[in-house]
Amino acid sequence: MGKKIVWQGGTQLAPVPVVLVGCGDGNDFKYNLITVAWAGTLCSNPPTIGIGVRPERYSRGLIESTGVFTVNMPTAAMAEKVDYCGVVSGRDVDKFAKCGFTAQPASKIAAPIVSECPIALECQLKHTLNLGSHLLYIGEIVAVQVEAALVDEKNRFDIAKADLLAYAHGNYFSLGESLGTFGFSVKK
Amino acid sequence: MGKKIVWQGGTQLAPVPVVLVGCGDGNDFKYNLITVAWAGTLCSNPPTIGIGVRPERYSRGLIESTGVFTVNMPTAAMAEKVDYCGVVSGRDVDKFAKCGFTAQPASKIAAPIVSECPIALECQLKHTLNLGSHLLYIGEIVAVQVEAALVDEKNRFDIAKADLLAYAHGNYFSLGESLGTFGFSVKK
Repeated sequence: MGKKIVWQGGTQLAPVPVVLVGCGDGNDFKYNLITVAWAGTLCSNPPTIGIGVRPERYSRGLIESTGVFTVNMPTAAMAEKVDYCGVVSGRDVDKFAKCGFTAQPASKIAAPIVSECPIALECQLKHTLNLGSHLLYIGEIVAVQVEAALVDEKNRFDIAKADLLAYAHGNYFSLGESLGTFGFSVKK
Repeated sequence: MGKKIVWQGGTQLAPVPVVLVGCGDGNDFKYNLITVAWAGTLCSNPPTIGIGVRPERYSRGLIESTGVFTVNMPTAAMAEKVDYCGVVSGRDVDKFAKCGFTAQPASKIAAPIVSECPIALECQLKHTLNLGSHLLYIGEIVAVQVEAALVDEKNRFDIAKADLLAYAHGNYFSLGESLGTFGFSVKK
């Protein structure tokens, strides 16, 4: 390693999460899903997430009208459906129906979670920033839903068994082996 | 899948990137590194990244004084050093020296990139938001440096060979198998 080639600025941060954002209240605004890879945890307390959404997206109106959204983490096995939800519009397609996903009401907000995803975050919109091609929605995570079958008797979620999906430079990846836990470098 | 347990809000977005943020201009402010997992791509054009940094961190002063930082993506083999750079402070330790990392000047900004990392983003600070426990630094990616050995004759970077590190719920992971590329669900 060492010799570098310099490129102009681009979105090469990797891996990034690739998630199904759920929106719509199921009444005035029907449920929709949008695949988002421009997403990150931004703050621990209050737990805060940011998602980048193009302003021309159908979901924009749903998120801004309701002030809430969910972030659903798919499994590696769901890669093809996740990709599909990123390339078609909720204006044209009922993505829940088309993908065979089950919309389940969130616990604290009026938005759907995807029952088939092992983890779902319920988010309240706190700030909106226009960054250029994308609007940044900053949301406080007000509740988390985890798959009961992946939680052990000590209330620990088995992240390795969840088999989550990652995204890097236009490629979907599964996660590989666990290499250690936070702080392992100084615990030896 | 289906039956869920509801938890209070938390930072369970996963996987997230885990990167070495480089800062300091090498003159008034000596080079430092900080490990950050609260990071995400936020916008495509201009290419924009967000990183969450606790205000008490030594790097805060360096980033705010210089207005720039780098985001260096480590390999899975670097997991232990990445962990170490997240648990010790630049006030006490020269992390470049301690980890055997080579500080290489960025091309467009006064901040160090980590030569051993296969990809480095050069970022200009555009916005700072106080979100609570963390400050959100939003930076425009003004240049990218990629490892020459991983770029082919068509100027494509081999992301799978880069063997990048991921982070999920306190665990470091390698990336597993590639499952498809963006748009594959509708190209068949």
